[in-house]
Amino acid sequence: MFESAEIGHSIDKETYEKAVLELREALLEAQYELKQQARFPVLILINGIEGAGKGETVKLLNEWMDPRLINVESFLQPTDEELSRPPQWRFWRKLPPKGRTGIYFGNWYSQMLHARVDGDIKDARLDQAINDAEAFERMLCDEGALIFKFWFHLSKKQLKERLKALEKDPQRSWQLNPLDWKQSEVYDRFVRFGERVLRRTSRDYAPWYVIEGSDEYYRSLSVGRVILEGLQAALKQSGGPKPQPHAAPLMSSLDSRSLLDSLDLSHKLDKDEYKDQLATEQARLSGLMRDKRMRGHALMAVFEGNDAAGKGGAIRRVTGALDPRQYRTVPIAAPTEEERAQPYLWRFWRHVPGRGQFTIFDRSWYGRVLVERVEGYCADADWLRAYGEINDFEEQLHNYGIVLVKFWLSIDKDTQMQRFKEREEVAFKRYKITEEDWRNRDKWDHYVHAVDDMVDRTSTEIASWTLVEANDKRYARVKILRTINDALEAAFKKD
Amino acid sequence: MFESAEIGHSIDKETYEKAVLELREALLEAQYELKQQARFPVLILINGIEGAGKGETVKLLNEWMDPRLINVESFLQPTDEELSRPPQWRFWRKLPPKGRTGIYFGNWYSQMLHARVDGDIKDARLDQAINDAEAFERMLCDEGALIFKFWFHLSKKQLKERLKALEKDPQRSWQLNPLDWKQSEVYDRFVRFGERVLRRTSRDYAPWYVIEGSDEYYRSLSVGRVILEGLQAALKQSGGPKPQPHAAPLMSSLDSRSLLDSLDLSHKLDKDEYKDQLATEQARLSGLMRDKRMRGHALMAVFEGNDAAGKGGAIRRVTGALDPRQYRTVPIAAPTEEERAQPYLWRFWRHVPGRGQFTIFDRSWYGRVLVERVEGYCADADWLRAYGEINDFEEQLHNYGIVLVKFWLSIDKDTQMQRFKEREEVAFKRYKITEEDWRNRDKWDHYVHAVDDMVDRTSTEIASWTLVEANDKRYARVKILRTINDALEAAFKKD
Repeated sequence: MFESAEIGHSIDKETYEKAVLELREALLEAQYELKQQARFPVLILINGIEGAGKGETVKLLNEWMDPRLINVESFLQPTDEELSRPPQWRFWRKLPPKGRTGIYFGNWYSQMLHARVDGDIKDARLDQAINDAEAFERMLCDEGALIFKFWFHLSKKQLKERLKALEKDPQRSWQLNPLDWKQSEVYDRFVRFGERVLRRTSRDYAPWYVIEGSDEYYRSLSVGRVILEGLQAALKQSGGPKPQPHAAPLMSSLDSRSLLDSLDLSHKLDKDEYKDQLATEQARLSGLMRDKRMRGHALMAVFEGNDAAGKGGAIRRVTGALDPRQYRTVPIAAPTEEERAQPYLWRFWRHVPGRGQFTIFDRSWYGRVLVERVEGYCADADWLRAYGEINDFEEQLHNYGIVLVKFWLSIDKDTQMQRFKEREEVAFKRYKITEEDWRNRDKWDHYVHAVDDMVDRTSTEIASWTLVEANDKRYARVKILRTINDALEAAFKKD
Repeated sequence: MFESAEIGHSIDKETYEKAVLELREALLEAQYELKQQARFPVLILINGIEGAGKGETVKLLNEWMDPRLINVESFLQPTDEELSRPPQWRFWRKLPPKGRTGIYFGNWYSQMLHARVDGDIKDARLDQAINDAEAFERMLCDEGALIFKFWFHLSKKQLKERLKALEKDPQRSWQLNPLDWKQSEVYDRFVRFGERVLRRTSRDYAPWYVIEGSDEYYRSLSVGRVILEGLQAALKQSGGPKPQPHAAPLMSSLDSRSLLDSLDLSHKLDKDEYKDQLATEQARLSGLMRDKRMRGHALMAVFEGNDAAGKGGAIRRVTGALDPRQYRTVPIAAPTEEERAQPYLWRFWRHVPGRGQFTIFDRSWYGRVLVERVEGYCADADWLRAYGEINDFEEQLHNYGIVLVKFWLSIDKDTQMQRFKEREEVAFKRYKITEEDWRNRDKWDHYVHAVDDMVDRTSTEIASWTLVEANDKRYARVKILRTINDALEAAFKKD
């Protein structure tokens, strides 16, 4: 894999200087076109052998291009806010918005490689990390991102010479990283595991470019040209036909029976049972949230459901048990401008709670496969691939110890009509009923179908859906609280 | 000050329950109107005696109102990202956007009071903190924020009874805070310093409301009504006439001589001097940025100047000396939607660098008193008060050890014309010249006047302006680098 990057590529100064003049001009123009179009972000990952010119190349790119449109991110020691959340969070929060370029030093690849070379993880864990990286990059590309992955390479002999030179130059001491590159064993292991990583993550949508690092001119020009050509090609694609969805078309139910139809909506609690059980479950939740073991977890609750199914009331019964400092409610409405400049899941990642915290999503990332699908707000390809992206997202949460509970509050059509009418009558509930609610109601069957698909595809062992029979509000509230409590208890037991 | 809050206010259950029904409805309506208008945010500060019902009241507000439109922030232990920046940063980053409500527990008042009661600071430092708080709140109000400050009070006797009850109730243990309230000396000191703070920070635009905390009904209803009335009044004010600017009108120069006219723009460096001095200053900067003492500071550089004065080129000469991981360039363009929903300075606060870091602002918060003033993008009152707000902002930075350097790059009209023409000719510089540049040129004299005022009012001993004679780019670049280096060295010397 690295053979062609050890043959001593080089070019002479004159050729280089002539080429650079044109290259710079073209790069700047492409960069400004990128900004103008603001259709996609560019992500440049920098990896490879120490001393192979990673730092110098990034410095050069900043000189050649307009540094005001580039974010260089280094991802050294995570901060405590980052440590308190799933590992991917820190990469999400620094993603460049559409129209800008992000250069990621010390990205997911450096982390997994260092961990493997140091022996902190074994091959199996490395492969997991590789899979996560692939899924992440695939998602970014599906969202339009243009990704360049550079591996700067040196032969072992070249490395030794570079290290000597580096040590003598105090201005470059910052380039040395924790691995002890002077040991040739480190080199061997790094290259071996590097190969494994590159082999498995070189994909058409995000290929690796191996750059021989020994000759500065050759190296710089190669990187510059790769970026230029990739950028120009991407800028020319005028958002034309989207790639085919990777998911098979969904099956429509042949007998028009749905999951939701099969719910027994007659479940009920009378006032006394309700009072009793609500108090019990609220006390239980309050106790669990104050349990020491909660410090090693976080809690996320997703509320979806028919309009007027009682999400707001249910949420208030949950929060009613808690110290307001421990939870946060995130109502999901139309994305803001900054959110629209990012991949779809970005606006949910930004609200992922830190350890010990609880975040309630009033509507959620499932909007993609519900309202956006039904109303046609996004292309079919977008919502079809969303199921997989959502499962990946939730797996990240789960792996970090976040307890995720997801509720679909289900009522029947008659109950909804009755509640709409009530709301129109009661003054302080009037804000709750809008034109849109009536329009949504007309699409009842479409939603039933979308919910079926959603549950089929995203009710996983690590994050299952709870369908809540919500014709009776009391029954629904208690069931929700109890489900949260059971999920927390189960997670604590596994600690 | 607290006398009327120790007389044993109370109301009976029946009166309370009747009143609450109406109150809730009205609060909800006001809250929805607030969201609809999205004209201003609401900030509720919660302070006072332990056990006086702070936590319970916040919980109740979340029950009465729609919790999805409320952010409760607790500000307990700062995170390391917060510790790495001026103390105000953490309050800025959590400010509620227009249309929403933020409830701040553990705000600036609790911090200063705890520090004073514990004896960590003396009266002089307390008074400084009070002044900072006042300036901050004044700014928020000028930006439209509606602020409620609640002091929950108990007499010493009431406190002792409450503490006993609290201790017995495990569900409320989270309410106890680090001060040892069982000592009556703590109470006395807290009340004494609390009085000092309240006296000095009770202003028409952000008054304190002292609430007697012993009777739950009385307390809850009082707080609810204060919020409701304040909110309703603010919602009715239809953005009408702005308050008079607090600044005296600026003097126009009687002899039409300006600060900029007095610059000697003939300063020059020949190619060899430039090469030499540039290399020296770049090496110096590189060394200073790697100096251990840099870890206790951060660096911010502001670049303002005439169009085509060479800001971009100068910035590249500065960054050319540095590891791209250590600096970040922030180009200031039109604010995003999320930025527009916040006070003016919010979008600059979000980019304040952490310790050891360097942020370069390509245009800056001075846009308010330059382009926004000249083009009439904001009201006179807004840019007139901006001078003071900016000085406060920069003082926060300075007090935390951030080194701030501010450059105005000045060229004459002929030089600008020449550069505009050059830019139109050179392909890869063409992106640099826009219609707007030509329009700005027509307002040359207005800008001269605005710059004069800006320098007069914001060149302070802690953050002085450096006027850079930029007809000669070489001279300008070296002067800029040298100024940054001198500033860093001076700061290190004081350590």
